[in-house]
Amino acid sequence: MSILVVGSVAIDAVKTPFGKRDEALGGSATFFSMAASFFNKVNIVATVGEDFPKKYLNLFRAKNIGTSGLHVARGKTFRWKGWYDYDLNTAHTVYTHLNVFKDFKPVVPHDLRKTKFVFLANIDPELQYSVLKQIKTPRLVACDSMNYWIEHKRKEFEKLLDKVDILLLNDAEARQLTGESNLVNSARLIVSMGPKAVIIKKGEHGVIYFSKKSHFIAPAYLLESIYDPTGAGDTFAGGLMGYLSRAKKIDEASIRKAIIYGSILASFAVEDFSVNRLLEISMADINSRYRHFRRITKF
Amino acid sequence: MSILVVGSVAIDAVKTPFGKRDEALGGSATFFSMAASFFNKVNIVATVGEDFPKKYLNLFRAKNIGTSGLHVARGKTFRWKGWYDYDLNTAHTVYTHLNVFKDFKPVVPHDLRKTKFVFLANIDPELQYSVLKQIKTPRLVACDSMNYWIEHKRKEFEKLLDKVDILLLNDAEARQLTGESNLVNSARLIVSMGPKAVIIKKGEHGVIYFSKKSHFIAPAYLLESIYDPTGAGDTFAGGLMGYLSRAKKIDEASIRKAIIYGSILASFAVEDFSVNRLLEISMADINSRYRHFRRITKF
Repeated sequence: MSILVVGSVAIDAVKTPFGKRDEALGGSATFFSMAASFFNKVNIVATVGEDFPKKYLNLFRAKNIGTSGLHVARGKTFRWKGWYDYDLNTAHTVYTHLNVFKDFKPVVPHDLRKTKFVFLANIDPELQYSVLKQIKTPRLVACDSMNYWIEHKRKEFEKLLDKVDILLLNDAEARQLTGESNLVNSARLIVSMGPKAVIIKKGEHGVIYFSKKSHFIAPAYLLESIYDPTGAGDTFAGGLMGYLSRAKKIDEASIRKAIIYGSILASFAVEDFSVNRLLEISMADINSRYRHFRRITKF
Repeated sequence: MSILVVGSVAIDAVKTPFGKRDEALGGSATFFSMAASFFNKVNIVATVGEDFPKKYLNLFRAKNIGTSGLHVARGKTFRWKGWYDYDLNTAHTVYTHLNVFKDFKPVVPHDLRKTKFVFLANIDPELQYSVLKQIKTPRLVACDSMNYWIEHKRKEFEKLLDKVDILLLNDAEARQLTGESNLVNSARLIVSMGPKAVIIKKGEHGVIYFSKKSHFIAPAYLLESIYDPTGAGDTFAGGLMGYLSRAKKIDEASIRKAIIYGSILASFAVEDFSVNRLLEISMADINSRYRHFRRITKF
């Protein structure tokens, strides 16, 4: 069953202690779809400007990622510039130029409105809601957000939470949303706010999954070299949703495996700038790292 | 087979966001021995002053912890005062009064010199070395240290490393020792310096184990309430060595289980001040939390 993602397709300028890239392909929908495409057909709902390079469109096509919902608007593509120092957990933004994203009104193409797996990447919760309303009977809805929306559009965000199966947040956002510093208590509060489950992403320290019935904790895959953490969270979500879209059943066991696949995809993504590493690897590489992860965590 | 620990027995004054305690039992050898005593007989080599409360001596005896190597010297017991804010990972020291610890020359009682399991808690590496020289043929030697010794007694510390099976450090100390910020590379460098294996403790983020042949990563047990993190690292070491002293074989599988038992013991210790929680729990509580940990990490 195919997957639909609404989010950003962007052009990034990134600097880390290990190098820099300008005019790099970025955006939440980009990282998500590249990761999920290892498992299933993915369709993007997003907008870019007339300046969006053709070579990047071709990259999506090469990965069999559907772009019928990628609207080319008059103006410039969403651009983000940022840098990281040796603490790769913290992104420092130089600028965010929304450009064509400012007037983005996501429209889901008619033939995609029966999509069963939906990922609402980090955009205005009103837009996330409007996308959900266009989808007929989704089987699984996952949703990401960020500090800005939690602060400035809290009501809209809370209204959305009722419709969400899995909410993904990082640890700081979970604490911000609940006002609770302990992550166990924070996760419990979140699942009482509407979503069936929450995944709290702790970057290099792994993830915590909490549903009403159970929880799961996993360390992150250990890496020798991290070049650029941009997009790690969306890549994680792509691996997660990709795996679940192929699973026979969506239950505790498949969600746990999906979380590990998400971590594995993210571990590849950060080994190079932009989506470069995701373009190099194969499903065999992913499965091999998954098996290695099992070996180094088993007791 | 019994266990020997050399380290500090102290009187602590601790303040956390959840309360404060004065004249509390503390010290690395204390936390270690309380944790290891669930598994086996433990003997302490340490020194206290004449002011050391009889009730604390009785606590050791009640846990069947041997105190024949606990020297009562003229003067005052080692005292530490510190506090934590909501970031419970960082201890802020108000004072460290070494008192009788200043002239501590550890002597291992003759009948304990054949001990097979030895833990060198965080003290001057010269003293750690002198204790090792008194032990005839140890089967397993584990060792802890801290930033101060790595900086000021680096030669002595490096000399010791050759004799150590498992070195325990926190992540900051591992980075300091190797000058390498990536923990995988740091761990590899450490095992090339002498010890057969290293365990890097990341507090609430779990542990990394590295030997020449393999590695293991584990998250920490999730807690709803952490009252006082003092002694967590030594409690971890106590659970680790305690479990290994009862294992049929010391191999990869038993070391992994021992690491989880160490984490479980530490998870109890931080639920109350001083060693209070360790005095309340039973082996059944420990095994029950161990099984729960398996359930919430399995995939």
